[in-house]
Amino acid sequence: MSSQFRLAVDAMGGDLGPRSVVPACARFLIRYPRAALTLFGPRSELQSLLNSEPPSVRERVDVVDCVQVITQGCNPVHALRHKRESSMAKALRSVSTGECGAMVTSGNTGALLALGRSILGTVEGVRRPALGKSLPTSEGSCFLLDLGANIDCSAEDLVQFARMGVEAQRVFSGRQDLSVALLNIGAEEHKGTEEIRRAGQLLQSDPSIQYAGFVEGHDIFTGVVDVVVCNGLMGNVAMKSAEGVIRLIGQKTFTIDKKAPLKRYFGQLAINLLRKWRSQLEPARYNGASFLGLEGNVIKSHGGASSEAFYRAMLTAKECAESDLAHLVGRALAYQAQRQTGCD
Amino acid sequence: MSSQFRLAVDAMGGDLGPRSVVPACARFLIRYPRAALTLFGPRSELQSLLNSEPPSVRERVDVVDCVQVITQGCNPVHALRHKRESSMAKALRSVSTGECGAMVTSGNTGALLALGRSILGTVEGVRRPALGKSLPTSEGSCFLLDLGANIDCSAEDLVQFARMGVEAQRVFSGRQDLSVALLNIGAEEHKGTEEIRRAGQLLQSDPSIQYAGFVEGHDIFTGVVDVVVCNGLMGNVAMKSAEGVIRLIGQKTFTIDKKAPLKRYFGQLAINLLRKWRSQLEPARYNGASFLGLEGNVIKSHGGASSEAFYRAMLTAKECAESDLAHLVGRALAYQAQRQTGCD
Repeated sequence: MSSQFRLAVDAMGGDLGPRSVVPACARFLIRYPRAALTLFGPRSELQSLLNSEPPSVRERVDVVDCVQVITQGCNPVHALRHKRESSMAKALRSVSTGECGAMVTSGNTGALLALGRSILGTVEGVRRPALGKSLPTSEGSCFLLDLGANIDCSAEDLVQFARMGVEAQRVFSGRQDLSVALLNIGAEEHKGTEEIRRAGQLLQSDPSIQYAGFVEGHDIFTGVVDVVVCNGLMGNVAMKSAEGVIRLIGQKTFTIDKKAPLKRYFGQLAINLLRKWRSQLEPARYNGASFLGLEGNVIKSHGGASSEAFYRAMLTAKECAESDLAHLVGRALAYQAQRQTGCD
Repeated sequence: MSSQFRLAVDAMGGDLGPRSVVPACARFLIRYPRAALTLFGPRSELQSLLNSEPPSVRERVDVVDCVQVITQGCNPVHALRHKRESSMAKALRSVSTGECGAMVTSGNTGALLALGRSILGTVEGVRRPALGKSLPTSEGSCFLLDLGANIDCSAEDLVQFARMGVEAQRVFSGRQDLSVALLNIGAEEHKGTEEIRRAGQLLQSDPSIQYAGFVEGHDIFTGVVDVVVCNGLMGNVAMKSAEGVIRLIGQKTFTIDKKAPLKRYFGQLAINLLRKWRSQLEPARYNGASFLGLEGNVIKSHGGASSEAFYRAMLTAKECAESDLAHLVGRALAYQAQRQTGCD
């Protein structure tokens, strides 16, 4: 049985707000009897939702009253200046004080990055924190980063993402010996932007990284590599496009199902199996991206997260808290910094 | 019945070469009795493959002997300087002379762009030709460009891609009134790169374009817009990632199929339906991207194209040739240029 741990939950982030967050929290507390949660949001609203949950759940939830809320459209700079008392900011503070082992939010990514940097600080030597996630492959899983925290990235940023991604994927996959590739539009050396090509040269000459070269979008899902690194624009597009196709396939099965009676009969059998298969790729199942490079464990849930999806993000937060991923990333980068100083 | 037309086929481009190209050509000629083809490649090899095809096919195939071949790894500049007699270059020349209505190749994209610009030239006013493709959505189809011809794009380039994409999607969808969006990492105005935001402002203020704002990767497949515009890095990643997931789902159906006997029985029924559903999204089915902005119809097939996939690319080429898409794009941009001069 895992030891006692506490997570911070920003109840106000997503499109659905507490209505999806509170049921997810209840499910999480029932599943993990030694877990405790601190919820950040308007006390009255949260309490009324919590009242419909069993005592065994309520007694392990602390509510911290927050009136300030950060909207999805809120500009990061504005959040940094005027939203220091928001549910997101207070949840981050509870991680910086060590009261909570990790925080989960469906809130505005830009604001989360800005407030996270300001309240938690970044791991020593980290230029830019990155957002990453373990995605399903035919072999198991592949950790993709950055998913949208950094639009433009230098070669040095990408190399640092590679190191952080390896640490994260070790936690999520339970494996030690991991290969890393750069996302590009082709495998040939002359392909891609100046920064991608330069990152390739840096990784090639780094003995501490098992570099596998350039890969293309489809390779994220083939399992040929364990970690795929790219800037936030490419990573976000890769993940969202993949999710779009999965949803499209889901719709297709239902539209075609309703044709001839015989088709409908076999179709139903098919759909039952298909649902199961698809559920293995369902975006909700892979909800919960980790912010790497911050001095604390921060998990970003999808903005439109359902209760199921938010629960999945909480599972990711639990893994990060129990392994203290933020600490592992810090240690890995510190070791690297030493090694490089030693080489100079 | 469609009137007589001739397509140019570069038989040497893809990983499989003539072995996948010649059977696709035979199938195409049987399907279209008034079609004729000119094949570019080593005469002896092509003839020996053609000899196994019926006379009704052979009599409508001209072979142009080419010994020079452009490899997938070939640098575009090298191709431009030293591969003027390659099968790709000669096929492009047959389009520039008007002998063929369109050319199809599985060859090196960079070399195709470089040789296409040099041999066919670009439509007047076009800064950069773009590679685009009609992809399946829950509503019908969505035209995505650029798919990898241009890594870095200015706001003005993206606006031009929008115009060319609308013309292309009119041909492929048969619809006139089409909406256009920019691919980004969020719908909010402050999201994305400087160039994406600036392109948004330019499109917003352009009465000739039905601009729908920013969309994310998943929206390519939801049918909310008819044309999605982005730089070649984002477009390539979006398309390849989507293809990767479709393949992954394909594999999953087979791996799970082999478990319990009962599952295997129902699973088989499921798989038969699933195959059909999946085939509607199968990348091969959507093979064949159009180069827009060149003074001639050029269709790029996937490098690893099977015979089935190459056949699909030939169908795209037929549509482009019969509608003379290159001419339509030229006319649309010329009209736009006039309109702007008129405004000044």
